[in-house]
Amino acid sequence: MILDFLKIEGLGNDFVVIDNRENIIKDYSLITRKLCSRRFGIGGDGVLFVENSEEADCEMIIYNADGSYAAMCGNGIRCFAKYVYEKKICMCNPITIKTGDGIKKAYLELENDKVENVKINMGKESFNPKNIPLVGEEEFINKTIVAGNKEYRVTSLLMGVPHTVVLGALKDIDINEGAFIEKSEYFPKGTNVNFCEVINNEYIKVKTWERGAGATLACGTGSCACAVVTSKLGLTNNKVTVEVPGGKMMVEVNENEVYMIGPCNIVFEGTIEI
Amino acid sequence: MILDFLKIEGLGNDFVVIDNRENIIKDYSLITRKLCSRRFGIGGDGVLFVENSEEADCEMIIYNADGSYAAMCGNGIRCFAKYVYEKKICMCNPITIKTGDGIKKAYLELENDKVENVKINMGKESFNPKNIPLVGEEEFINKTIVAGNKEYRVTSLLMGVPHTVVLGALKDIDINEGAFIEKSEYFPKGTNVNFCEVINNEYIKVKTWERGAGATLACGTGSCACAVVTSKLGLTNNKVTVEVPGGKMMVEVNENEVYMIGPCNIVFEGTIEI
Repeated sequence: MILDFLKIEGLGNDFVVIDNRENIIKDYSLITRKLCSRRFGIGGDGVLFVENSEEADCEMIIYNADGSYAAMCGNGIRCFAKYVYEKKICMCNPITIKTGDGIKKAYLELENDKVENVKINMGKESFNPKNIPLVGEEEFINKTIVAGNKEYRVTSLLMGVPHTVVLGALKDIDINEGAFIEKSEYFPKGTNVNFCEVINNEYIKVKTWERGAGATLACGTGSCACAVVTSKLGLTNNKVTVEVPGGKMMVEVNENEVYMIGPCNIVFEGTIEI
Repeated sequence: MILDFLKIEGLGNDFVVIDNRENIIKDYSLITRKLCSRRFGIGGDGVLFVENSEEADCEMIIYNADGSYAAMCGNGIRCFAKYVYEKKICMCNPITIKTGDGIKKAYLELENDKVENVKINMGKESFNPKNIPLVGEEEFINKTIVAGNKEYRVTSLLMGVPHTVVLGALKDIDINEGAFIEKSEYFPKGTNVNFCEVINNEYIKVKTWERGAGATLACGTGSCACAVVTSKLGLTNNKVTVEVPGGKMMVEVNENEVYMIGPCNIVFEGTIEI
């Protein structure tokens, strides 16, 4: 079978997109592993499948490169929104997209009918130790912890997944220190670790160590977590540019929700025999 | 500009192929770096450019992913031969291909007019210490050397590039030991290191540590070097199957030259805006 596909990336997080509205794909996991192989397939961090939906404008099903299911992905949904708009599958703005984490709204920033940026509601943070979860009943706000024989001042929160923010100059840290914090006794389910440097009240730099995945080019929820923390501590305004190794995004921290606004780019289109 | 391309791999060594017979590409290095980026481009170990030639049926120009020029590549030329035949650019068999290392002949094994395997003349080995080069004037044939505080029995030869073959069970070695041998004092220009296990007189397994590149899925010249050594030592016939992490190839050791016969597969085709 000859399959049409498109390759797209958001801040270096790259995906293969397959239009599956006619249900040509049945075994998502198998095809994803095949397509995501970087030498024997197309290559990518995952596959975004476009599906019909009765509740929303369309449905996004995501599988990770290893064949595992993902309920939602901040970088992925921006790419997905660009695809369904530019391919004229959904011609509205915002677009409602059904995901494994509920229906999400994607607000498109258009230029000459091309999608330049996509704004996504990333939900609301929680500092509640039970929600994150943390050991004990105390919030971690600028708290000193010890991991790998080193002291860190950290703030921890749930932002979709558990996040810990370590403020300081990025030149002084080794991203691999994240592994010690991730696995330290303070976090029963582990934590993503975001090293964050405040450049000014509108600009921060972030490097994220993802739980179970290590250093990545861009973590959407981690960037949101950092913006929440720096604005809560009075170090930044509620709208900041976040520079990550894969590029730049904007995060807007409102009272009831956090929005991420970021770019996505179509890299190439093609056909593959499967 | 919209560029047509094809992605192809030979034993896991993967390439982007660009038909440049109309000289659309001028800056090979720049375009190669862009196209080979695995997240922001198509992804590949290098780009194979198809060019017109007055001396041969066509010319292959190869650039590595980092933008550096490569004179020749055993896996690359097999992929190139499949491309120019199946795209009806060269309809002869064998095909003569001009490379930075002279004109090479590619013999095609066809099935229903599809190229299943390609046989390439890989030149002739040399055990001469000056050619490899080695320190001193003694050949290294089953010689004991010490690298990284460990003893190895090695045979060294020039097979296009310097190669050292270490015979033994692959389960007993860590491919990273290759780094110590590569950089040891015996090899003034370094050496590729091939760990080679003889399964029977027609089958060997090889893992190669490439000089400057580390562990790779398949090294064409390294596989040839191993077949030359095992047949010289009387451990195998002159025609052997070589199993490497990326797949299997055949090597034929004749008196005057060494031939490699291996597969290559078109992975996908597409267009990219550059």
